[in-house]
Amino acid sequence: MSFDFSLTPRVVEWRDRIAEFVADVVVPREQEAFTNGVDDALRRDLQQAARAAGLWAPQAPADLGGGGFRFDEAAVLLEEAGTSLLGPLALNCAAPDEGNIHLLNVVATPAQRDRYLVPLVNGDIRSCFAMTEPPPGAGSDPSAVRTLATKVADGWRISGEKHLITGAEGAAFTIVMARDGGSDGATMLLVDTGTPGFTVTEHARTIDSTMVGGHCRVLFEDVFVPDDAVLGEPGRGFQYIQVRLAPARLTHCMRWLGAARRAHEIALGRAVDRELFGQRLTDLGMAQQMIADNEIDLVAARALLWQACWEVAQGGRGTESSSRAKVFISEAVGRIVDRSVQLAGGLGTSEDLVIGRIYADIRAFRIYDGASEAHRMSIAKRAARRAGTAGQGSGVRS
Amino acid sequence: MSFDFSLTPRVVEWRDRIAEFVADVVVPREQEAFTNGVDDALRRDLQQAARAAGLWAPQAPADLGGGGFRFDEAAVLLEEAGTSLLGPLALNCAAPDEGNIHLLNVVATPAQRDRYLVPLVNGDIRSCFAMTEPPPGAGSDPSAVRTLATKVADGWRISGEKHLITGAEGAAFTIVMARDGGSDGATMLLVDTGTPGFTVTEHARTIDSTMVGGHCRVLFEDVFVPDDAVLGEPGRGFQYIQVRLAPARLTHCMRWLGAARRAHEIALGRAVDRELFGQRLTDLGMAQQMIADNEIDLVAARALLWQACWEVAQGGRGTESSSRAKVFISEAVGRIVDRSVQLAGGLGTSEDLVIGRIYADIRAFRIYDGASEAHRMSIAKRAARRAGTAGQGSGVRS
Amino acid sequence: MSFDFSLTPRVVEWRDRIAEFVADVVVPREQEAFTNGVDDALRRDLQQAARAAGLWAPQAPADLGGGGFRFDEAAVLLEEAGTSLLGPLALNCAAPDEGNIHLLNVVATPAQRDRYLVPLVNGDIRSCFAMTEPPPGAGSDPSAVRTLATKVADGWRISGEKHLITGAEGAAFTIVMARDGGSDGATMLLVDTGTPGFTVTEHARTIDSTMVGGHCRVLFEDVFVPDDAVLGEPGRGFQYIQVRLAPARLTHCMRWLGAARRAHEIALGRAVDRELFGQRLTDLGMAQQMIADNEIDLVAARALLWQACWEVAQGGRGTESSSRAKVFISEAVGRIVDRSVQLAGGLGTSEDLVIGRIYADIRAFRIYDGASEAHRMSIAKRAARRAGTAGQGSGVRS
Amino acid sequence: MSFDFSLTPRVVEWRDRIAEFVADVVVPREQEAFTNGVDDALRRDLQQAARAAGLWAPQAPADLGGGGFRFDEAAVLLEEAGTSLLGPLALNCAAPDEGNIHLLNVVATPAQRDRYLVPLVNGDIRSCFAMTEPPPGAGSDPSAVRTLATKVADGWRISGEKHLITGAEGAAFTIVMARDGGSDGATMLLVDTGTPGFTVTEHARTIDSTMVGGHCRVLFEDVFVPDDAVLGEPGRGFQYIQVRLAPARLTHCMRWLGAARRAHEIALGRAVDRELFGQRLTDLGMAQQMIADNEIDLVAARALLWQACWEVAQGGRGTESSSRAKVFISEAVGRIVDRSVQLAGGLGTSEDLVIGRIYADIRAFRIYDGASEAHRMSIAKRAARRAGTAGQGSGVRS
Repeated sequence: MSFDFSLTPRVVEWRDRIAEFVADVVVPREQEAFTNGVDDALRRDLQQAARAAGLWAPQAPADLGGGGFRFDEAAVLLEEAGTSLLGPLALNCAAPDEGNIHLLNVVATPAQRDRYLVPLVNGDIRSCFAMTEPPPGAGSDPSAVRTLATKVADGWRISGEKHLITGAEGAAFTIVMARDGGSDGATMLLVDTGTPGFTVTEHARTIDSTMVGGHCRVLFEDVFVPDDAVLGEPGRGFQYIQVRLAPARLTHCMRWLGAARRAHEIALGRAVDRELFGQRLTDLGMAQQMIADNEIDLVAARALLWQACWEVAQGGRGTESSSRAKVFISEAVGRIVDRSVQLAGGLGTSEDLVIGRIYADIRAFRIYDGASEAHRMSIAKRAARRAGTAGQGSGVRS
Repeated sequence: MSFDFSLTPRVVEWRDRIAEFVADVVVPREQEAFTNGVDDALRRDLQQAARAAGLWAPQAPADLGGGGFRFDEAAVLLEEAGTSLLGPLALNCAAPDEGNIHLLNVVATPAQRDRYLVPLVNGDIRSCFAMTEPPPGAGSDPSAVRTLATKVADGWRISGEKHLITGAEGAAFTIVMARDGGSDGATMLLVDTGTPGFTVTEHARTIDSTMVGGHCRVLFEDVFVPDDAVLGEPGRGFQYIQVRLAPARLTHCMRWLGAARRAHEIALGRAVDRELFGQRLTDLGMAQQMIADNEIDLVAARALLWQACWEVAQGGRGTESSSRAKVFISEAVGRIVDRSVQLAGGLGTSEDLVIGRIYADIRAFRIYDGASEAHRMSIAKRAARRAGTAGQGSGVRS
Repeated sequence: MSFDFSLTPRVVEWRDRIAEFVADVVVPREQEAFTNGVDDALRRDLQQAARAAGLWAPQAPADLGGGGFRFDEAAVLLEEAGTSLLGPLALNCAAPDEGNIHLLNVVATPAQRDRYLVPLVNGDIRSCFAMTEPPPGAGSDPSAVRTLATKVADGWRISGEKHLITGAEGAAFTIVMARDGGSDGATMLLVDTGTPGFTVTEHARTIDSTMVGGHCRVLFEDVFVPDDAVLGEPGRGFQYIQVRLAPARLTHCMRWLGAARRAHEIALGRAVDRELFGQRLTDLGMAQQMIADNEIDLVAARALLWQACWEVAQGGRGTESSSRAKVFISEAVGRIVDRSVQLAGGLGTSEDLVIGRIYADIRAFRIYDGASEAHRMSIAKRAARRAGTAGQGSGVRS
Repeated sequence: MSFDFSLTPRVVEWRDRIAEFVADVVVPREQEAFTNGVDDALRRDLQQAARAAGLWAPQAPADLGGGGFRFDEAAVLLEEAGTSLLGPLALNCAAPDEGNIHLLNVVATPAQRDRYLVPLVNGDIRSCFAMTEPPPGAGSDPSAVRTLATKVADGWRISGEKHLITGAEGAAFTIVMARDGGSDGATMLLVDTGTPGFTVTEHARTIDSTMVGGHCRVLFEDVFVPDDAVLGEPGRGFQYIQVRLAPARLTHCMRWLGAARRAHEIALGRAVDRELFGQRLTDLGMAQQMIADNEIDLVAARALLWQACWEVAQGGRGTESSSRAKVFISEAVGRIVDRSVQLAGGLGTSEDLVIGRIYADIRAFRIYDGASEAHRMSIAKRAARRAGTAGQGSGVRS
């Protein structure tokens, strides 16, 4: 039997409870977070409440205490959590921990699972993922990585500089992506942040504000780690990064789609109550156009997201479909929130209405996890390759 | 079990055979059609070949000789047929007959089925659907219909003027939508085109060219039809039109999506072979952007289409989801074909490359079946209604 | 002799000195402003330097100490000042004082000039303009104003609530727009901020950050002002607002155009130095597209701006041309800065690169001074009126 | 004195007379042209009428019988002529003759002027410009030209294939651009179409329809021309092409801007008279948005065009400003006409309403005279060069 867009009862039940939890518990803490930033105290408060509510880590394996939902089902739940910028943090399904949980679950040794994965799923610690580097290092192009990991007796020595490392301040450990001094490949290593030579330096002063632990510059100055710090096998970093990248960009899409829906709903709620030029705002054609375009973008983004997630849930790599989904959804989210600002009018850029904060926070989504341009290049190259070999009939088909 | 984007083996098998049939049988007749227009002789040739190939009316009921595919499965097949502008005609799944088949199948009496539906599914006759009228009559707003049907002894008398009636020239019968002189409602009637008082006058000189029977002005001058010409019950025309509208706009989306894919594939095929400024065209970033945006629009349009069709296949009315899909897909198709023209360069507007013909033919898709603006208005009104009653949480949700 | 796009030597000379001043004096203070906000101490520092540099209030009348430039010439100079978000403040050509200077210069009595205009041009005091109100009051539609001014013995009593009043905190006086209790019209009054009953309450927590004195809620609780506080004649507020609105929205365009150019130049400067996928970023087609679109938007915006300003300089009201220019330029500025963020990549949303700050600061430009939608409505209505009377030949013509 | 956007009385007088001539003489011949195509008989009729009306070749030198208007003034007049697709032909200011007149006027010898330029300005003959070639030859990149001109005794021998040569059928002569067999450069030559070896083969079947003489494939099979057939000096073809390209793309902008205005005015005129959903169409917000966006695009395009033309009129090459103008205006024209189609609704794609014809005819404007992408590349490269040398301050400035 083909085509099914229905939700299972368990998904519906979690979705509705998440909606309630966000409204009752998370939203009341937003203004405080916008004023003071998000710290670990606030994180612990919210996470404690989420666990108490039986809403914990929907995407994480059930045997580790998570919800154990299939990846495409998680799309529904992480969207719902994302309706507050703090929601994913509360449910422990926020970046970068959520992506690290996924990667560790696939690649980590039993000992690494015990030491890093278990407390991470529990929310006892935070982590970060150290890949991006200042130009000319790794950015939209991971293969440009310059941080070096060199095999020495009993372990590895890591040297290099990373930047825009989200959550580095306060993280217990990082996964670092490094060029393998002894091969053409890259190696991933687990580094406790207390290790000598590891330093978090400045925070980038970006216009977003709700990521715990900031976007930091991180130095690796001759950091030594033992052999068992290698994640998976040495030299296979470029393969492992694919394990993390496609799902991580899709969970970003899930969460930000929720944020976009929130902005839309706030703006719509205001528009219903507001009069302008003697008409209800929602009866004015240009407002209707923004409202309709938001609804259309929301459903198109969601349908595309579900399809890409379903592919991953079926065991696919999802490389191309997640690229397409990421470009479309990050840009759709941008459009939706921008229209919501406009629809909300004079207070559209205000944090009290939350829309202003969402507007600033989501902008970088079109850049990280591969800028739209990098994804477009790779999508086009694959299409050209298909066309070159198959002649016509090369378009993406059902 | 939720979420399934897989195709059944039977869908895959038909899809692949349609692709082959279009390439081998339909495409070779295109240039002739572009030069001379599409007449019934060409239609009969193509339809005979399709029947011979066992590829007939995928969307029509199996007991009448059609493929009997579920509506969401038909989406895959009509897209494939649509890769040639003549494909849907060949497979008897083109507008307006396809929509009339659907409507008659739901509403017609046994006698009407025998007289109109059976030969229509067989391709023995053609039909048209007479709804749209010159301003200030029915257009994007069906409720503005002015053609009058008045109950008289033993039958009805119909007077009015319709325009842009696709396929009227050469049709055996029309379904006419008329204001019911005796009620507030509308009545649908079946009118043989030979009935006295029924005249096809001028053809609109539009820039599309592949619809058999043109887009005609049609006069009803005191046309008399007997009581059994009423389709369904008198006065329920506005309900019946909903039966036709949502599926009909979705089958348009299916077919035009195929046309857009064709344009993209032709342009891509050329780009792979072409050099510019010393580089292969597909290695130039701006070309890559057009290619990638085409692929993204194709998959987003398709995911949204499948979801709306699935809703209809599950028995839903699909009013809102088909509106959203129609707006998005008609505009996505426009963007895809426009980019294909640009990518194909100097010959992009040429009919030989086919892209130019597709470009001209699809423009009206954003206007008929409800202009984008009319759909946006109705989408926004529903959203506002939800927001007004439900407060927040009003956005379209999974 | 028709058509001249050349700059006079005096304009060129000021423009170049402003560019130098901004680079040498203003830019070094930006990071401090982004961190701590902009206060009057910083304002006085910058303004003192600008006066010392002989670069003072280019748009203000020469007899009051300003540059005395024609309005269209001022477009060149305010754009240059706008290349730093602090530049217009430094040169005393920032909103809202600049608009108030213009309005007072046209309407104020000699006594009002001495008391308010002279110190305002000198930078001795700041002012604000109290028009916008919380819904359902005046916003994009000034005629919805609800604040009431009632004539009493020897003066007027003002009651009402304003919001989003830029610069209210710390202003010495405000011009308030109030419905005239005794007529259908509106009356403008000058109110010292120390007057009993005048209170600045909360600041809107918007995502912009460089306006001295915030965007405040202001209460008028039975505020008494004497008769000579009326600006111009009572009941003519709606006419006077036209005096202020068209030029004020054009000076906004001038300044923000400069900010957009700055963002573009920073992003371009980085792109020239950066490699990605083995190529210089400026050799990648998608980057070239963003760069080219920025340059095109800059020149189109500027040409349109100059034409609208020239019309005002010739004595025209500029109502329609300033509406068109405001819509186009506010949206072009939005596009330019958005592309600059994207081009700058990982640090695009960062304040250190300044682009992130410009991105957040300019968003409201599409809303205030008449949202794009309000201007579009009025542009369309005028076009329809012309078409209704003149038949064809109704488009805006040379 | 800087900045002047006023029109001289002579420009206004010609503009108004052209408007009258187009309405009275040209528009009545349009439907005939759309049905039968445009042939030389129709051309001669219209041109005779234009000469009789004293409206001849506004852009051509006065001493040759043209209007002798300055290039920026001609912008006003060619826009007005362009309001009918046949207008420029009627006034002998259509492509490709208009561009050839300009080029010959700058480069031709006295003998060449007598033989080619004089009858061309008079409308006694037509010409074409043979530059573009099938891939991998010259297209958006003129330097890829492959047609070869080889110096032989007493003359030159030309061999190659050109395509999309507008107006070739029926032209008296062509200017051909050929790679100079004896140098790295290119040479331009004048070739009478009766010369042995010169053949017009097939016409491209493009969707536009109003160019006399089609878009043809042209063969040069060892065509011999004498030495005095060289235009200007041998080897300087790449320089001469710059003489033609910038002005020719600007006159295209002038004419198409007129066509866009025409489409807008027709759609607007209909919208004023039409009711939908119980409101006048021009009172519906989404219609207002299309109307306003059309008016804004018209004025922005015009302001940018005038500035680029003024630069050329002042003796500038206009390379960069004409590139920017061409990209912006060709795309603005596309948007305006597309919105006009949509606004006109069911008949928007109809030739009777003219809009449909304009829609099809203008599409190629974004491709020829350098595709938008080729111009963007060159604009970006210049910007990057400025940024690389000047550091910041590199943006296009006033």
